[in-house]
Order: sequence, then structure tokens, then C-alpha cells
Amino acid sequence: MTQPFSFRCDATDGRARTGAISTPRGEIRTPAFMPVGTAATVKAMLPESVRATGADILLGNTYHLMLRPTAERIDRLGGLHRFMNWDGPILTDSGGFQVMSLGALRKLDEDGVTFKSHIDGSKHRLTPEHSMEIQRLLGSDIVMCFDECPSLPADRDRIATSMELSMRWAARSRAAFGDRPGHALFGIQQGGLDRDLRAQSADALRDIGFDGYAVGGLAVGEGQDAMFDVLDYAPDQLPKDKPRYLMGVGKPDDIVGAVARGIDMMDCVLPSRSGRTGQGWTRRGQVNLRNARHADDPRPLDEACTCPTCQGYSRAYLHHVIRSQEIIGSMLLTWHNLHYFQELMAGMRDAIAGATFTAWQAGFHAMRADGDIERI
Amino acid sequence: MTQPFSFRCDATDGRARTGAISTPRGEIRTPAFMPVGTAATVKAMLPESVRATGADILLGNTYHLMLRPTAERIDRLGGLHRFMNWDGPILTDSGGFQVMSLGALRKLDEDGVTFKSHIDGSKHRLTPEHSMEIQRLLGSDIVMCFDECPSLPADRDRIATSMELSMRWAARSRAAFGDRPGHALFGIQQGGLDRDLRAQSADALRDIGFDGYAVGGLAVGEGQDAMFDVLDYAPDQLPKDKPRYLMGVGKPDDIVGAVARGIDMMDCVLPSRSGRTGQGWTRRGQVNLRNARHADDPRPLDEACTCPTCQGYSRAYLHHVIRSQEIIGSMLLTWHNLHYFQELMAGMRDAIAGATFTAWQAGFHAMRADGDIERI
Repeated sequence: MTQPFSFRCDATDGRARTGAISTPRGEIRTPAFMPVGTAATVKAMLPESVRATGADILLGNTYHLMLRPTAERIDRLGGLHRFMNWDGPILTDSGGFQVMSLGALRKLDEDGVTFKSHIDGSKHRLTPEHSMEIQRLLGSDIVMCFDECPSLPADRDRIATSMELSMRWAARSRAAFGDRPGHALFGIQQGGLDRDLRAQSADALRDIGFDGYAVGGLAVGEGQDAMFDVLDYAPDQLPKDKPRYLMGVGKPDDIVGAVARGIDMMDCVLPSRSGRTGQGWTRRGQVNLRNARHADDPRPLDEACTCPTCQGYSRAYLHHVIRSQEIIGSMLLTWHNLHYFQELMAGMRDAIAGATFTAWQAGFHAMRADGDIERI
Repeated sequence: MTQPFSFRCDATDGRARTGAISTPRGEIRTPAFMPVGTAATVKAMLPESVRATGADILLGNTYHLMLRPTAERIDRLGGLHRFMNWDGPILTDSGGFQVMSLGALRKLDEDGVTFKSHIDGSKHRLTPEHSMEIQRLLGSDIVMCFDECPSLPADRDRIATSMELSMRWAARSRAAFGDRPGHALFGIQQGGLDRDLRAQSADALRDIGFDGYAVGGLAVGEGQDAMFDVLDYAPDQLPKDKPRYLMGVGKPDDIVGAVARGIDMMDCVLPSRSGRTGQGWTRRGQVNLRNARHADDPRPLDEACTCPTCQGYSRAYLHHVIRSQEIIGSMLLTWHNLHYFQELMAGMRDAIAGATFTAWQAGFHAMRADGDIERI
């Protein structure tokens, strides 16, 4: 029998909480950070290496996969898990966010969005029903509603109109998703930076009923202060007994602040993308390995880090391979960054479970404040 | 006490032979294929993955490393092994071949070569003495003489003049290398496609005395027939009790033909370079994974292959990630190709040890003849 999808909260500390999401493909320890595997690969990583960093779940992008290699092809090949050789849970976004980001290349109407592929200019259409079908073909474990996400700043009317459309699409997504034991459908709260609109959106989603709820429409240029202002109330507007997912976040201090405000799940391309441009994330802050000051430095990127990169390679080596544009530079830095992000999550889970999260946060910030980025 | 460098031949079958080179950093089973780690990395591979393919030794390029990050820097950082996290033996070339390939950017005289860096145009000079010093700073286990290698075709006078210069440089290399227990210096036979010049070169090298001997000046455009013609006599002109190394070879059928003619060591960028361009090497021949016919193919690249790529991924996936220019495409195909090349060497070692090398070769060629490249 297929196990159901469920969420349990094991402990809270302030507004922060820790627990686990159970899926037929394994447990997701929360708060969880999901590495992004846009085109059926977490760039520069083998899936077993992603697993070794401590990741329980990956994110896949509907927009990219529907265009290449297409959802139908992935379905014929046995689904996304088999295709990309990852047997853990996968969350897929709805395609909405990426399509909306296409700007002039897309056209919105009540029913859905017509857009042109960034790859070959071919014309495509996404509706709530089509997005559900694509995510079903991919075999996604956690499916996201199709929504519209306006960029900020935007006036209240624009935000309200957009949020209301997203709520109608959420109802259509729910209807199209149907009943799929072991698979989850998450709703997405919208409403910009407006508390009332956020509350209306939360109520609408709760009425429809979902297996989890995302705080959407943030991390789109509003800045950390504005994002935290929304997170001061938005998670509490959503059902307590379901996981809360903050989409597209973020930097380590964004993540810590979000967890402190009751977020259970996050995803971001940051650790992998910045790994490919020579940026290393550490307890003490961000280190640019391209900088000439690393050329003769025999120390690892972070002496306290247990990842294979820090165990086997000097900053001098990382500097050399990044400057030489060697693929191993992307491989090693992505591995380190993903390891660091997962270690951050594990540290927070332990601290929340032990009711020491306030002290943990103070330590996190003190370590960074101490880290003059040019000296670490 | 540092173990000496030594070579033993365990078995012969026809002119083919199998055995091992002992070095303080481990044994090199022969015939051996050496993956190329040009800039202190076998491109798109972690060193532990290179080891997992069955490689006992890597090749590093003096030319590339002297320019970036420089031999002096690698020395300060503890040597090339520590720098690139590879604890097995490393053979370094002398820089000669790559410098000669610079064409108009280099100027040759009796003492050495002056050239301009392909990276930034800066001026450098290599002499036999300087090449020995660089390879010492790198910490190379097997050091190659500094030689000149003319491109073919060339007239006999040009080949003879060049060979004689290389022999004078071989003597200077030997003198500059000195006595370094546990480290080996290999001489390089020249003489183009001329049997007499090859014999003169072999005699000159034998008089100087080396720990191993390379057949140089081949695989420079002369074609397989001409190369095999030289290999029909050249290895036998060299001392029997020392390893014989064919530089820069080659495709699987080049390698098999060379082993059949008494070669013990080879190196080539082919498996790694072609992995980065979507080419897979298999028992049956070469497969271009970019080809659209693979887009829906659920089979692995080679159903009989035990490498992680063939165990975990379909041709459809490889096609997708190569077309999408994802780094994992280079990682997976390079791994498979290096695995295949090492498996080829292991198969030959076993066949020679079991005195079944003739039958093994027939099987190798039959499998390939059977493999219509468009159908495998």
C-alpha cells in the first residue's frame, strides 16, 4: 500500500519548529533546504553527492523540463526520479514563476499563460490543469499549484487582482490534481507585502484545502527587511498542522530568519549557482575564491568543514581551478556550498529540538559579524 | 627508506607483455593507460573517481603547470600530488611537445626554446635543465627528458637534425636530473618514420641510461599504418628490462595495436576530451550521444558496462544533459570513457598473463566490426 503523505512537528522553539514530512520516497527532515535540479540535474553534482551533503529532497523546474526533454518523454522513461537517478522525494514548481519572468515573451489571460520558449522561441501554453498534468507526468512527490506572481514593487490593486486570479487557479489546480495517495499538492499564498491580502489569500487556500502551504511572491526584489516583515505574520496565517514553504530563499541569513519565523521548507539556486562562479559560503561569510589573495593559501576554504572539498583541497587549488575554468572548480565549490547549507539546516533542527535556537542564532550572527570577508 | 623505482615483466604473449612498475607511491600495472590531468585535474573528474576507474597513474603537463599556477607555487604548496589530491604516481611530460606545438610563438636554439604563453603572451624559456627543475618542483614520480618533436611529414635531414638535438638534450636532462631515489627519468626515442634514425636514437639513449624509454614523435598526424610500421621495430630497439612508453596514444584500436607490439604505457586526452563533447567509447565502437536517435532510448550507453554512468543513467538522460550543456554530461561521459579505457587495459593484462592475447585481440576487433556505429 502506498504510504500517505504526512507532516509532524516534533518540537517548537519560539516560532521556529522542527519535525518531518513523510513521503513514500522517504522522510524530509524540517526545516529543510531543497537544492535545485532545474534541468534534471543539480548542476555540477552527481545525485549521490547531493545526498551525501544531507539533502532529503530536490526541487525540479516544470518550465525547464516541459521544454526539454518534455514531461511526456520523462514519463515514457519512467518518471523524473529514474531519469535523473534520484530516488528521494522531488518537489516541482508549477512553471508559473518562470513563465511570468519571461516578461514580453508571455501573455496572461484568465485561463492561463501563453509564452515563447527561451530555447527556440516555440510557442507553449500553461494553465492550472496543464501544470498539474505535467507535474503528474514528471512523477513529482510534492506538486505546486499554478499561480501568478507579480514582481514587486506593484500597487495594491495589481497585487490584489493577481492574488485573486491565483486563488481561482489554486481551486482549479486542486480540482485537476484529484486524489493521488502518497503525492501532495501545495497551495501558494500571495498578496505581496499587504497583510490583509495575505490573510485573504490564506483563507482562500485553507478553504480549498492543501497538503502544505507556500509563502509565495517573496524574494522577488523586496529586500530582506520587507520579506521578514511579511514573515512576521504570514506563516501564522497558514494552517499550523501543514508544512510551510518559503519559495526561492535564500542566503544563509535569509534562511535563518525564515526558520525563526516558522518556515519549514526552502529552496534556492544560490549554493549551486554561486559555486559555479567561484563563491564559497562558510560559517563566517562568503568567500570569493577568484581573489588573488587565495593563490598561495594552503588552508581549506573552511578549516572546520567536513565536506570533501575542505578535507582534500586548499584555497590555492580552488583558486587555480576556478581561474583556469576547470569543471572541478564548479564541482568542488558546489559540493562545499550545498554541504554548508545542509549543515546550517541540521544545526537549526538540533537547536530547535534542544530549545536552544535563540542562542544558536546569536552564535550564527556573531560568527558572521566576526568574519571580515576580506580576512577569512 | 625510499623504495627504488623498478620494472618487472610477469608474462609475455607474442611481443605483448604484462607486469608492473613499482614506485614509492604505488604499483603501476602494465600495460597501463594514464589519464591526462593537464592543469592539475583530469577534467570533469574528482581524483577518487579517476582512481575508481582503475587508473594507477596520472599524467601532468609541465607546459600548462609552469604557466599556471607555476611550478614554484605548487612546490610551496607541497607538490602536485597534495595540490591536486592524488596520492598515486604522476608522470609529467617535459613541456617540449606542447611548446613545439606553439608554432610561430616559439623560437628554438641549441640551448633550448623561448616561447610565449598561450594564456597571456608572456615570454618564457625552457631548456633541458629548466624542464628537470620544474618537474622536480612538481614532485613528479616519472620525469620525461626535454626533447624536440618535429611534426610529420618532414624530410630525413630535418628529422635527423632534430633527433640529434634531442639526444644532446637527453644527455643534459640526465645530468641535470641527477640521482633521485624513488624518482625515474625516461628517455625519449626520436627519428620519425626512419628505422635507422630510430636505431641511432635508441643507441644514444641506451648509452646515457634511463629508467624507462618512450617512443616519441608518433601520433603526430602520420596515421595508424605508419605508426604501427614504426612500432613493428621501435620497441625492440629499446632495452627489454625497462618500461616502454608510447606518448599521446590513443584510440582503443591504436592502444591494442601498440600493446601487441610491446608497449607498456600510454596516455591520451581522448577519453576525457571526447567525454566533454558527447562521445562515448564502448566495446562496440564510438557513440555520439548528441544524436537525436538517443532522445528516447532507455538503455544505458553499454549494457555490459559496470561504470556508474551505465549503472545509473539512460542514453536518453545522457542525450538530454549533453544537449542542455549540463556539467553532469561531461562528468558522466568522462567517467564512462575512462572506465572503458581502463577495462580495456585490464582485459589485455589478463589475456597476456593467460597467453590468450591473440584470441582476445580477435574478440576485440570482432566486437567492433559487429558494431555498426549507427545501430549500437
